[in-house]
Amino acid sequence: MARVAVVGIGHGRFGQRSDATVQELAFEAWREALQDAGLAPDAIDASVVGSVPEYHKQRSLAGVVQEYLGLNPKPTWLTEAACASGSAAIRTAWMAIQAGLHDVVAVIGCQKMTELSTGEILALMGRVGEVQWESGFGTTFPGYYAMFARRHMHEFGTTREQLAQVAVKNHYYGARNPRALFRKEITVEKALASDPVASPFHVYDCCANADGAACVILASERRAREMGRAGVWLDGIGCASASMSVLRRPDLTGLPSAVDAARQAYAMAGASARDIKVAEVHDCFTIAEIMAYEDLGFCEKGRGGAFIEARQSYIGGTTPVNVDGGLKAKGHPIGATGVSMACEIVRQLRGQSGERQVPGADLGLTHNVGGIGQYCFVHVYRRD
Amino acid sequence: MARVAVVGIGHGRFGQRSDATVQELAFEAWREALQDAGLAPDAIDASVVGSVPEYHKQRSLAGVVQEYLGLNPKPTWLTEAACASGSAAIRTAWMAIQAGLHDVVAVIGCQKMTELSTGEILALMGRVGEVQWESGFGTTFPGYYAMFARRHMHEFGTTREQLAQVAVKNHYYGARNPRALFRKEITVEKALASDPVASPFHVYDCCANADGAACVILASERRAREMGRAGVWLDGIGCASASMSVLRRPDLTGLPSAVDAARQAYAMAGASARDIKVAEVHDCFTIAEIMAYEDLGFCEKGRGGAFIEARQSYIGGTTPVNVDGGLKAKGHPIGATGVSMACEIVRQLRGQSGERQVPGADLGLTHNVGGIGQYCFVHVYRRD
Repeated sequence: MARVAVVGIGHGRFGQRSDATVQELAFEAWREALQDAGLAPDAIDASVVGSVPEYHKQRSLAGVVQEYLGLNPKPTWLTEAACASGSAAIRTAWMAIQAGLHDVVAVIGCQKMTELSTGEILALMGRVGEVQWESGFGTTFPGYYAMFARRHMHEFGTTREQLAQVAVKNHYYGARNPRALFRKEITVEKALASDPVASPFHVYDCCANADGAACVILASERRAREMGRAGVWLDGIGCASASMSVLRRPDLTGLPSAVDAARQAYAMAGASARDIKVAEVHDCFTIAEIMAYEDLGFCEKGRGGAFIEARQSYIGGTTPVNVDGGLKAKGHPIGATGVSMACEIVRQLRGQSGERQVPGADLGLTHNVGGIGQYCFVHVYRRD
Repeated sequence: MARVAVVGIGHGRFGQRSDATVQELAFEAWREALQDAGLAPDAIDASVVGSVPEYHKQRSLAGVVQEYLGLNPKPTWLTEAACASGSAAIRTAWMAIQAGLHDVVAVIGCQKMTELSTGEILALMGRVGEVQWESGFGTTFPGYYAMFARRHMHEFGTTREQLAQVAVKNHYYGARNPRALFRKEITVEKALASDPVASPFHVYDCCANADGAACVILASERRAREMGRAGVWLDGIGCASASMSVLRRPDLTGLPSAVDAARQAYAMAGASARDIKVAEVHDCFTIAEIMAYEDLGFCEKGRGGAFIEARQSYIGGTTPVNVDGGLKAKGHPIGATGVSMACEIVRQLRGQSGERQVPGADLGLTHNVGGIGQYCFVHVYRRD
């Protein structure tokens, strides 16, 4: 089977971006990706927009982005899988190329979260949980993940200090990432002393909403070689679903969709967890990163707390994770997040990450979760 | 290139469905499609949900549908392209199969529009137009299409009577479709005398919101032959975009995205407009069907009014169009509409349409428009 190459990446600044509309955010990332790829706009055959539409006043988002980017009359549409919408767009673009339908596809992940009030956002987010039996009775996102954390603590002895250590690591790297929302280091003591949110979570256990956009340009192997841009490949894609109702989950210490998606992606890429040199995982809450270590096979089940405590997910450890700051410090513009992860991994594989560079990074992974794991997308990227 | 087969179709009743949640609507269509295909649920490799999420209280719609259909842990996500969301899902499923990623993919188009008040729906719909420069100043969907109609009348002498004749035809066939919302015939006089909406449109020029769902199951050629279900193929797919701002359109008498998408689909299927024996087109307003005749090449530019006046889009005419009632009489549950069109064409190609059967139907087309043509998807289906 021919391969799919990543020929361009672009990434805007994440944060409260009252200076830009959502299509302007998309344009920032898109322009940088085009320049990075050395392409003119007419070289793009189609675009796929990853976003969660309901946060924007503007409906029909792919249409307005396509017009603003000057990409009419090329095909476009939007993909949505809650916080994994950006990875659904990358999967769609991979399929379009492998199907022989398009040679060069731009994937634009973009989200403006600050058009709505905090109350409106909380109401929308709650309803990413199952409406009829769960969110209607008061579940919220911190509440769902707090249940995962409590169960993980109960079963495996995971501690609040270990949760806080995830936040400390991600702030450490976020402080070194100019595109991150929070660019300051924190300490375990500061994290533990921050305001409570949903037991056992305090403020520093939770990622922050942000506005932002990211773009990757994928191309067929043939076209990438013609362009002289071959070298970084999307070699494995995995996607799985799980029940949206937490009440139907037999186990709350991991996400079954992540395990399934990783298995698919590793098999397609001919790789295993121990081959992964750098990973971006979906740390919407600190427990989510600890569960990801386990679900992805970076450590044994139940050993995620010990893994961060031993600094195995720092650069220099077994598997460096979220060395761009993760959702925690970079911010989480939900539709952009999966595409942002891809940008970071490609930059690492190219050796362009400066002081955050993982030495010898030739195989990288992204793990992007929708909701409480009703979707998970895992992608494996390789440098020749 | 191997072909993609349609191996199952299912279609719920369109209407005000206060008896069912959106996932229950999806289940109705899905169950019928599975039975039609003679498949067990575990034969499905993945699903794609076509819907416009913001009309539902439930967020993360693909997740809740996947769970309700019993399809976990199979991959799923949602596609959105305004009123063409269902066709975007079909395109995505076609790509997944042609990419060799999946063999059997269920496409579920579903929409509950009546959870919201009419006022909320009008506000949402207006914002499918460009928010910054257009809908903010009062444009609405009837208003946009009324501009198309006025310009068509000015340039080509199209008449209000011809517009009404489209509605009369679609009600004639809707009265013969048990799944349609409006099952009664009307007359030109009645249409002309109905309440005005946006000049030149009266009530009968406009389609109606509805709840509903439809499902098609696509399969690889190899798998379809193994199942003994080969015979109806999705042989041509086209998709194009156009500016969302009507102020950037050089011409208001047609949709450039429809012309582009049709050209792609005809080329891929090795067919031309005159080969099409039956078509489903996006008659959200009566003028939209007249423009579709022209954009798709069923008649010359400017002759769409004469085409309906001469009954060329009735069964027995040059190209029968919307002989299931169209959006006008069947109702328009926006995410379901594109999938509903596919069901009708497949049923026609199989010769299962009873008193609405088009004799000798061996090549059919669907034309599904998003918004005011910022997206258009054209698909060509063939019976061996």
